[in-house]
Amino acid sequence: MIVTVIGLGLIGGSFAKTLKNHHSDIHVIGSDISPTHEKKALQLGLVDECLPIETAISKAEIILLAVPVNIIEQQLKDILNNIKEYQLVIDFGSTKHNITQSVSDHPNRKNYLAAHPMAGTENTGPEAAFTGLYTDKILIICDQEFTDNQLLKKAISIFNLLKFQLIYMDSKSHDKHIAYVSHLSHVSAFMLGLTVLDIEKDEKNIFNMAGSGFQSTVRLAMSSADMWTPIFIQNKTNVKKALSQYITQLKEFEAALENENEQVLHQMMSKANNIKKALDKKQ
Amino acid sequence: MIVTVIGLGLIGGSFAKTLKNHHSDIHVIGSDISPTHEKKALQLGLVDECLPIETAISKAEIILLAVPVNIIEQQLKDILNNIKEYQLVIDFGSTKHNITQSVSDHPNRKNYLAAHPMAGTENTGPEAAFTGLYTDKILIICDQEFTDNQLLKKAISIFNLLKFQLIYMDSKSHDKHIAYVSHLSHVSAFMLGLTVLDIEKDEKNIFNMAGSGFQSTVRLAMSSADMWTPIFIQNKTNVKKALSQYITQLKEFEAALENENEQVLHQMMSKANNIKKALDKKQ
Repeated sequence: MIVTVIGLGLIGGSFAKTLKNHHSDIHVIGSDISPTHEKKALQLGLVDECLPIETAISKAEIILLAVPVNIIEQQLKDILNNIKEYQLVIDFGSTKHNITQSVSDHPNRKNYLAAHPMAGTENTGPEAAFTGLYTDKILIICDQEFTDNQLLKKAISIFNLLKFQLIYMDSKSHDKHIAYVSHLSHVSAFMLGLTVLDIEKDEKNIFNMAGSGFQSTVRLAMSSADMWTPIFIQNKTNVKKALSQYITQLKEFEAALENENEQVLHQMMSKANNIKKALDKKQ
Repeated sequence: MIVTVIGLGLIGGSFAKTLKNHHSDIHVIGSDISPTHEKKALQLGLVDECLPIETAISKAEIILLAVPVNIIEQQLKDILNNIKEYQLVIDFGSTKHNITQSVSDHPNRKNYLAAHPMAGTENTGPEAAFTGLYTDKILIICDQEFTDNQLLKKAISIFNLLKFQLIYMDSKSHDKHIAYVSHLSHVSAFMLGLTVLDIEKDEKNIFNMAGSGFQSTVRLAMSSADMWTPIFIQNKTNVKKALSQYITQLKEFEAALENENEQVLHQMMSKANNIKKALDKKQ
């Protein structure tokens, strides 16, 4: 089987490398807008070959779009316009509603599957890609009822090779929940990084004190601005709602601190401790 | 040498266990307000014996206070009132200015050393303690010029056994910098946890989506409310300043998102990316 991966960064590169290294019957073609990324991907053995995007697409049974969500929206239509009956295009973008809506009336909608892997690191580019990124990770599949059943089965067999755990959700719910659990965390970390850099002119202090939990909280602030700008724009309504609630909570905390209201501060933190229950299931 | 540890949670317990396990010439006495904690600490081999606080203190050359910062403030005075010439009391609280100020005029001030380890996890209690928590971690020593030189040397020899990297700072600077790099991260994580729990009534969604970076960002929300309430109160001025700047940044982000100003969003995130430089030195 030929699988083409468009976008050879952390997400696409890890998908490509895992398939290439563990499944010799799969030929992996890569394509990236950056020639440097393509060269690097070949050097690192993420893909079997790199080809210009149109050739790469025309040769594949499965095409994975692992590019920023605004580019997915552009490319998806083009790909569907020319797709053949037996081909399936999958996107791994972090938003799902805008993308699925943009092709909802497309005559070849059945040749497309929307998905979002709950996996990643703060690192970017082909060098960040590694085999096993997706092992035991959750893949959210959205609106699968609009995908051709045979093609869906083929996609699932690929996802199983990657050892994903599959869950299903409509794209609107996906975007709502992911705004709170993932997108808000990113805003929170980006702005924490910005605040600390703004005040701590001498980076030595950040370096010296980073062991105090800061490192973990701010990790996502290292994520790619290119990738995250269109995600926030596409999921604007949900992210704004989440962010506004977050700011409200921070202000309540600020007021309680101003009044030295130990009881309220303690209550808020004790309530927040319950996040452990939700995460413990995960560990 | 006899070392007494008051407070047998993560911080005190790890200090005790590391000394006890690797340095047979040191006898470690523990004391905790909770009999359950004392029993557990003995079972887990964190200490050689547990004794009532007054006896535990009177027997030791070095006394470590590893209790919430408001309790440190209370106990430190009592201990200094009765301390003998050759004894040193050290506190490991996360705030330093209030505590050092509270005993600045004490006739036995020279028998006290203020310190703060840049180490910890979100876990609490004797079960959370482990050998090596402090290996290669930074210990900030504050206002050491007010500590007797011989006692300071003795403390440093203990810190070296624990493999701390020592840095020195005045207590006022410590509280200012730690507000931004540590205390703000905790507020940010606590309120993130609260916001998500508030909206995601069905914890299944948190569980399913936690792999998306949320887990790392929210980790500190599991920290102890008992410990953190007095820290925030004691460092109120600095924490409020940090928090207010954080809220300002979040609102700027919110406004840019509302206006779909991609350029500003991208700029804010790219600037935040620079946190990597400060942290890379660490890794």
